[in-house]
Amino acid sequence: MDFFDVINKRYSHKGSFLSTPVPLKHLEKIAHAGLAAPSGGNSQLVKLVILPNRESVQTLNDIRPATALKTAPAAIALFVDKSMHATRFDFSLEDYSAACTQMLLAATAMGYVSLWLDSPYFGEAEQKAACELLNAPDSCRLYVVLPIGLPDGESKYREKIPFNERIWHNKF
Amino acid sequence: MDFFDVINKRYSHKGSFLSTPVPLKHLEKIAHAGLAAPSGGNSQLVKLVILPNRESVQTLNDIRPATALKTAPAAIALFVDKSMHATRFDFSLEDYSAACTQMLLAATAMGYVSLWLDSPYFGEAEQKAACELLNAPDSCRLYVVLPIGLPDGESKYREKIPFNERIWHNKF
Repeated sequence: MDFFDVINKRYSHKGSFLSTPVPLKHLEKIAHAGLAAPSGGNSQLVKLVILPNRESVQTLNDIRPATALKTAPAAIALFVDKSMHATRFDFSLEDYSAACTQMLLAATAMGYVSLWLDSPYFGEAEQKAACELLNAPDSCRLYVVLPIGLPDGESKYREKIPFNERIWHNKF
Repeated sequence: MDFFDVINKRYSHKGSFLSTPVPLKHLEKIAHAGLAAPSGGNSQLVKLVILPNRESVQTLNDIRPATALKTAPAAIALFVDKSMHATRFDFSLEDYSAACTQMLLAATAMGYVSLWLDSPYFGEAEQKAACELLNAPDSCRLYVVLPIGLPDGESKYREKIPFNERIWHNKF
């Protein structure tokens, strides 16, 4: 798909998914797109766990239910490995966000919908349970889970502030 | 350009730029791609200032010189408007990173190179000077400047850890 078509088509899918499976090759292609994102000092501290079917996604949903996870036929869990900091600054949030953004776009490019689902893992109890479930090393923290699949029902695009109210030339 | 070609082609251009100007329409298209990025609670708190020529980029470079800024024929400065938080969480870093990532990819899709240039504005003195120069409202903070143009010389891709050492299936 053309790059700018992908940009315009991507949206946050907060609804349910069809049960149609997502081939593992597609999930790996999406994961690769995420890992190709830039990282502070080229630290590449993002690590991904592919959850390739509804059963594996369900075990994660059991920790803290979310509409999108409940029905998603696949997902990718994104971890940051804190032991891999390359610089004196902590770019965990920037690095994970760049990887996440590229995966959301990649899923769109392949005809799927997805969602930046982070809030279920803000709480320490849920964080601990999810890390245990996925056997994450102590140095890793789960930042986001991206449910991936085909949408069950219409896409809901959120309202955008007109772009010309957010862009200036030369100065504000 | 095909989406996955863009993903594979993008790199961080830390070298010099040719003086070839970048048409304003191209810069606006890149800016639009950035503003189409997801944001926490749909807050859309990213604001952009287009620096459309070498002279405008130079004034910013004078505050804190950087190789890429010194020669760049254009740039986009990305601000976060802290007064626009939509939720009780602060997603400034995530939101700006998503917008920045989409602009880096958009620049690549249009045949340009760019760079995630944040470090010159970490210091409060440089932050204040840059905000004054660009007439930024008090609620805004400059997070990153993306120099944009054609590369002067060969592209240098940074070494990547093999993807299969960063991806797991079902669990670590």
